Amino acid sequence: MKLKINKKILAKNEDCAAANRKFLKDKNILCINMISSPGSGKTTTLEKTINMLKGKVNIAVIEGDLQTQLDAERIRATGAQAIQIETKGACHLSAAQVTNAIHTLNIDQIDIIIIENVGNLVCPSDFDLGEEKRVVLVSVPEGDEKCAKYPKAFAKADVLLINKIDLLEHLDFDVNRIKKDALKLKKDLKIFEISAKTGDGFEDWLNWLTKTKK
Amino acid sequence: MKLKINKKILAKNEDCAAANRKFLKDKNILCINMISSPGSGKTTTLEKTINMLKGKVNIAVIEGDLQTQLDAERIRATGAQAIQIETKGACHLSAAQVTNAIHTLNIDQIDIIIIENVGNLVCPSDFDLGEEKRVVLVSVPEGDEKCAKYPKAFAKADVLLINKIDLLEHLDFDVNRIKKDALKLKKDLKIFEISAKTGDGFEDWLNWLTKTKK
Repeated sequence: MKLKINKKILAKNEDCAAANRKFLKDKNILCINMISSPGSGKTTTLEKTINMLKGKVNIAVIEGDLQTQLDAERIRATGAQAIQIETKGACHLSAAQVTNAIHTLNIDQIDIIIIENVGNLVCPSDFDLGEEKRVVLVSVPEGDEKCAKYPKAFAKADVLLINKIDLLEHLDFDVNRIKKDALKLKKDLKIFEISAKTGDGFEDWLNWLTKTKK
Repeated sequence: MKLKINKKILAKNEDCAAANRKFLKDKNILCINMISSPGSGKTTTLEKTINMLKGKVNIAVIEGDLQTQLDAERIRATGAQAIQIETKGACHLSAAQVTNAIHTLNIDQIDIIIIENVGNLVCPSDFDLGEEKRVVLVSVPEGDEKCAKYPKAFAKADVLLINKIDLLEHLDFDVNRIKKDALKLKKDLKIFEISAKTGDGFEDWLNWLTKTKK
């Protein structure tokens, strides 16, 4: 019975995601779903991305968190539009929540919408939000063995961002191991090594983003 | 309907957790449920804890992961008993899974069982496993604002371990902020600052552990 209900929930989510995808495609907006553990640096990466593309690409952010408006406030401080969804305890965003958020944004001024999912490397992987591309972000302090433990997060992603590379010298983290493991799960995965703190590695990530937007 | 099913699942879990708690109490075994994000250092903390108490306190570990036996293998390398539960995609351990694991352990040789939950700061908080005490672990690179975003993980814990304090000098992390926020959520929370890498701060944590075992 649990399985049946879960299938129903997922099927309803798929319908809603498909509608989001069509709506955003018609508006020529690139939509990205960003997934990571808590504290990997999603918000800092978005702040840096928005600031470095300012005047060239207009980015809006949909923030998912169990509670608090903290992340949306940080994004708004960059001048970008941001909508906070408080999931009230739910461990992932759903496509219906994203539909509501999209219709709250001033949509005509936007080139790219980035959805920052709830900090959780497990549950968000199962929920299509209507994104065009999915980005998984891991940070150096989390360790280099994450692919084996959380394979779905990598197998369903288009891009892997390895963040906090400025900490590599202080930690035992094998960049080649995680790259090799991730490419086994998704052979055409794009991988960028970045530091959202220093800006290192952002050129390639921003190039990918702007080219994918076209 | 979803809510009704969820309530049923939680009620069934509570029954099973109560049975685990009674069984372990009768055997005079302290059971701890450890919760954190992926990559916060749960396994490294357990390795260090087991090694530092070797010959004094006999610790066994029940490992929860989506998949892989990696963590149980690391624990077994210390000489301790370890059982790996592969949840096959489920985002938390359930009390029934722990029951099975307990009955696989050689129970007469154990003083303390530590359950390392699936790396996830959200979902495991809702599932009582039959533990006597709950430990939430956060690491310095994750940032000091975790209490506001994931309040349940802290409000339901008995101990907060702040790990990777050896990285404090490289990161912008306010120990007092997270302590203050955590104590607002749980006023009698015990807080220990540790480095599972260097062993710093372990004395107080191990004292708490051995005193709580009695």
